Order: sequence, then C-alpha cells, then structure tokens
Amino acid sequence: MGDQNRPEWTDPEKEENFTTTYMPGLKSKHDGMEQTNRKRFQKKDNAELDIQEIAAKLVGGNRIALSKAITLIESNAKDHYQKAQELLTYLLPLAVPSIRIGITGVPGAGKSTFIEAFGILLCEMGYKVAVLAVDPSSTVTGGSILGDKTRMENLARHPNAFIRPSPSGGTLGGVHRKTRETVIACEAAGYDVLLIETVGVGQSEVMVRGMVDFFMLLALTGAGDELQGMKKGIMELADAIVINKADGENVTLARKTCREYNQILHFLLPATKGWQTRAFTCSALHGTGLEALWSVIQKFKEKGEESGVFTERRHLQEKEWLYSMIREKLENAFFDHPGVKRILPSLQASVIKGDVPVSKAVDSLFQEFQQNKPEV
Amino acid sequence: MGDQNRPEWTDPEKEENFTTTYMPGLKSKHDGMEQTNRKRFQKKDNAELDIQEIAAKLVGGNRIALSKAITLIESNAKDHYQKAQELLTYLLPLAVPSIRIGITGVPGAGKSTFIEAFGILLCEMGYKVAVLAVDPSSTVTGGSILGDKTRMENLARHPNAFIRPSPSGGTLGGVHRKTRETVIACEAAGYDVLLIETVGVGQSEVMVRGMVDFFMLLALTGAGDELQGMKKGIMELADAIVINKADGENVTLARKTCREYNQILHFLLPATKGWQTRAFTCSALHGTGLEALWSVIQKFKEKGEESGVFTERRHLQEKEWLYSMIREKLENAFFDHPGVKRILPSLQASVIKGDVPVSKAVDSLFQEFQQNKPEV
Repeated sequence: MGDQNRPEWTDPEKEENFTTTYMPGLKSKHDGMEQTNRKRFQKKDNAELDIQEIAAKLVGGNRIALSKAITLIESNAKDHYQKAQELLTYLLPLAVPSIRIGITGVPGAGKSTFIEAFGILLCEMGYKVAVLAVDPSSTVTGGSILGDKTRMENLARHPNAFIRPSPSGGTLGGVHRKTRETVIACEAAGYDVLLIETVGVGQSEVMVRGMVDFFMLLALTGAGDELQGMKKGIMELADAIVINKADGENVTLARKTCREYNQILHFLLPATKGWQTRAFTCSALHGTGLEALWSVIQKFKEKGEESGVFTERRHLQEKEWLYSMIREKLENAFFDHPGVKRILPSLQASVIKGDVPVSKAVDSLFQEFQQNKPEV
Repeated sequence: MGDQNRPEWTDPEKEENFTTTYMPGLKSKHDGMEQTNRKRFQKKDNAELDIQEIAAKLVGGNRIALSKAITLIESNAKDHYQKAQELLTYLLPLAVPSIRIGITGVPGAGKSTFIEAFGILLCEMGYKVAVLAVDPSSTVTGGSILGDKTRMENLARHPNAFIRPSPSGGTLGGVHRKTRETVIACEAAGYDVLLIETVGVGQSEVMVRGMVDFFMLLALTGAGDELQGMKKGIMELADAIVINKADGENVTLARKTCREYNQILHFLLPATKGWQTRAFTCSALHGTGLEALWSVIQKFKEKGEESGVFTERRHLQEKEWLYSMIREKLENAFFDHPGVKRILPSLQASVIKGDVPVSKAVDSLFQEFQQNKPEV
C-alpha cells in the first residue's frame, strides 16, 4: 500500500465532496450552497447517482464512492432518501465483520490525539480504520467535532484510513439513523475497525453505546475532581476507561487516577455481561499503552463471541434501532401536525398551572390530530 | 380524632371497594367478578357515580368517597374514564399543597415496616398521610406489594391515614397515569404527606422519581456487597439513602455502611440541584432516626421552595407527564394497528438477520399504518 492510494486533495470530485461534508453546519443556513449541491447531483443524475455503480466502486474500496454514498445517506432530500435506501439494500449483505468502538470523553481529554495515534497503530497493523463522529452539538453551534480539516492530519493521509466528519443538521434521532447507516456503508467498503467519536452532550453517549460493540471513556488525571463534573451514569456505559496523557511528570498522577477509577468501578455493574470494566493508562503522545488497549479490545471480542454476548448485543441493537426509528417518525407526525401545533402551547401552560388534567389535555390533542389524516 | 373515623371493615360499601381494589391481580382473570363490579356501578349509576357528590364528599375528607374516586380513576372502562376526567377537573384546583415522597429499596430492606412507623409518626404529628404503591410487577405476578391486607395494620387503623394498594392491570404507562391522578385525588382530600412506594422492577424507580418531590432509597447494611446487586443509577435518583434496621447488634454495621454510602455519594451528582444527598441510619422497629429524617425532608422542602427548585421540578414533571402520555397513546395506536401487527414480526426478524435496512422496514410499517386511518 503506497502513495497511489493516497487521496488527492485537489481532485475536483473530492472538492465537491468537501463542500457537502466538511461544512455541515453551514448547509441549512446557506440555502444557496445547498441548492448548488442539489444541482450538481441533478446534473450528473444518471452518471453520478447510478446506485449500482456507486455500490460496486464502494465495495471495491473506492473512498470517493464511499464519501458519495455517505453524502447520499446524510441528505435530507426526499429523492435522495429513496436512493439511499436502495443503496443500503445492496450494501447490507456485503458488510464485512468489523469491530465498532465508541469513544467519548470530556473536552480536553485528548480525543483527537488519541484517535489519531490509535488509528495509525491499527492502520500500520493492516486494519482498515474508519473514523466517524456523532456530534449533536453541531446543529447548535454550527461547528463540528471533526469539522476541522487540520485535525488528525496524519491519520487522514494514511491509505488504510477513512475519516468522516459528523453528519449535519436534523434532530439527534436523525443523526442516529445517519450514523448507523454510515456504519453499514463503511463496513461494505471493507473497513474492519470503526472508531465512533462523540462528545458528552445530551443523550449522545447513550446513543453511541447503542450502536457499538465496545465503548471507551477517555478520562483525565484527578478522578475525584473530574467525577464531580462527569455526566451521571457515563461510567456505567463503559467497557474500558482510558486515562490519557500518562506521560512526563503526569505518569504518577495518571497511575493514581487509574487506581481510583478501578476502585469506583468495583461498585458499578459492568456495561457488558461477563466483562469487568477496568481503567488503563496510555499516552497518545508517545504511543504507549495503545497496543495493550488493542489487546483488551481483542480479548473482549473473543470472549463475547464465545459466550454469544457479542451477537446478542448486535441483534438487540438492530431491534432497538427499529423501534427508536418508529417512535421518532410517529412523534414527528404528531408534533408537526398543524392542529396539534396550534393548541399545544396553551394546553401545556394550562397543565403546568394545574387548570387542566393531563389526560384531558391529551384527549384534546388527539382529537385535533384525528381531524385530518396524519401525514406519516 | 377518635374511633368514629376509623374505617369500618365490615361496611358493605367498603367491602365492595375491597373487591375492586384489594385483589387487583384477580380482576382480569375473573371476568365474572369484574362484571359484578361493573353491574354494581351501573346499578347505582345515578346515585353512586354522581361526580359532584363524590367530589364534595372527598374534599370533605370522606375516605369511602376517596376510595371510590380512585377506583373510578383506575377503571379501564371507557365510560368510567370520561367520568374520571370530569371528576379530576373538579378536584384539580382543590388539591392541597403536599409533600410527595417516593420510597424504594431492595426486597428485605423493610419498606413496609419503615412506611408504617414513619407514617404513624407523621399521623401523630397531625399530618394526614396517604400511602400509595406503584408496583409494575403486579401485572405479571398477579400479586401486589400492598395487596396483603395484614400489612401496615396499625397505620391503616389510624384516622389520619389512608392506604391504597397498587393499581391493577394495564401497562407500566397506565400505572403511571393512574398513580399520578390518584395523587391529585388524595391531595384534594386533604392528605398533605404522600408516601409512594415502589419495588425495583424495570423502570419503576425512574417513574416514581418523576412524580415525587423527595426520593428515598432504603438500604441494608453492608453497602459494598449490596451495591454489587443494586440497580444501575439508582443511587443517583435519591435525595436520601436510609439504612434501616440500625438496631441491636446491627447498629455498628449500619453506621459503617452509612459512612460507605456517604463516600460513594461524594462521587455522584446530587439528584436535586443544590441539595447534597446523604445517607442516614434509622430503626423502624424502635422508631429511632425517623424524626431526624422528617427534619431532613422539611429542610429539603424549605430550601427547594426558597430557591424555586421545588416548583420548577413540579412544573417539569407535569410537562413530562403530558409528553409521556402522548407518546404512550401514539405507540399504542401504531403497535395495535392490525396491518402493523401482521407484518412487524417478520420484518423485525429480517432486520436482525441483516436482510432489510431498518429505514426500509420502517417505511413498510408506516405504509401499512396509513392504509386505514389509525384509531387513536
């Protein structure tokens, strides 16, 4: 594997891809730009959106085809949605067995540095590594955790790596669907290690935990202090806690923190049946502890496959995904209904003031909802 | 307040009430009995279900009227539902300010003994105390945590107390609605301390946390061992942890356990903003520590009212209740739809096997759902 596989950053096709993917927060604000992209898609409709061709190239390992497929999956346009479903039906049986790893941590825990170092290590071992991000904050801030092109520059250049910024726009539920479908596309393209990064905003960790095999929490030294500010229940989602920045003068403190975490973990139920969650130290900067961590993940996979927990979790995740999508669609139909929208604010205020019983308010809302056949 | 207020257990009206409420698990199994009760209601429809009369008696402190109102609230019959809503509209503005206290704990923690001792203490102080139960397991086992008439016998006899067993039948969501509406009925009847008991099954603690001001976890001695088997996240819901059975030879161990809990609590975010959750010891058997616990709850209320956290939480709870009822009703409409019911099992299997993308399965289900105008 040499330079011939290296992506050409000046490639015009790649450039187009950048417009749609590296500035996700801008899309909804700049309708003009969105339209330009739509036109490009329409113009090249026969050539570019030939689903079979994209699928064939993607499965052959073509990264531009994979980027295009993901852009299609992430698109909010109705016709793209249909095409994306068609594409996924092709790709689904071709997805390679992979290990899906979720990574979270407070800001400053060094997630990017860690993912870059860990990703390069795996790429050098011969794995194909895809990095995805779930960033519910991007819709609020207009930014994106992987939006910065300069991040993970060395990993991005590696022929075995594929980096995709967080999907743009839409609800958290939408991000959910898109990331899961992007996972399938990456697996069909032969990526056998998926690193899914998230920031600790709202329900994002729970969401990512619900789509990965192994979930990792990146922590800083000084467990006691940090735990005070740590999101409730987050430790109970983790299959491993990794204390990064165990380098230089920080080594002693990192080891102490590691012990503290292990003490607390003793009081918590493990996130995965039959697996004792433990804390580890590493230095993404010097590359120490990363191979040991990979061994832990390998061990986790082996044990889980033996006991059936691994497959069981994936089946459960598929099922939960189905039901969460149903719920999301139902709620959208209800809360977007014009009649419901009209009366909900005043009814909600009356319920809070204690003037109207909740059941009665619900009845009134459903009467409105039934006035017109709901658009679902 | 003397014996004249004591419930007459042989009163035929009260007896009728017992049939409908003290054997909730039996209702659905014995249609004959259910029908008998329906007939009784129908027979006396004008006299007995005069909503204004029930409301007036209930507000006047008549416990039989309160029992009747709750039976109406808990009824699954459609005409009763309408009448219950009518009744609640009357009662809502008459509800007295109360403190709603949730109590949970592992089996064997001594919940009944604790509630009885704590309830009698409060009754003797002049408070009117209502004890309710949320027991999602009753639908499965046919039993009920408060179903046993012999439990809390002394409290049941106290003129200031009202004990209601857990609502029968229906989904967890249904229990939810019924308990919340029962709370309103009790407050309209002048009960100013509500003790809502739950067992650690499924989502019941989260549900009860969502309807009370103060949430209490009853624990046993030996924190380390017990925590291993304790439900995840349960400590993070609590405003106080109470180590019961701190009596006799157990006192030293109880105090040690209390310190252990306080150490762990140090690492958790408090359940209520501005309130540090702490562990306490008590002995329901000897009545020690109960007055101190009541002071803690009083302090909690005062602080919360001062800071606005108390009112804020109640408003949020009302709002969440509204949205959870909407979601429940929507999902019932969807999953009870004949077309959806017909195709869901095979589609779910295909999704799990990886033959059909989730989005496509959802689309097929919604096409079925739209075939007929859904019954919502």
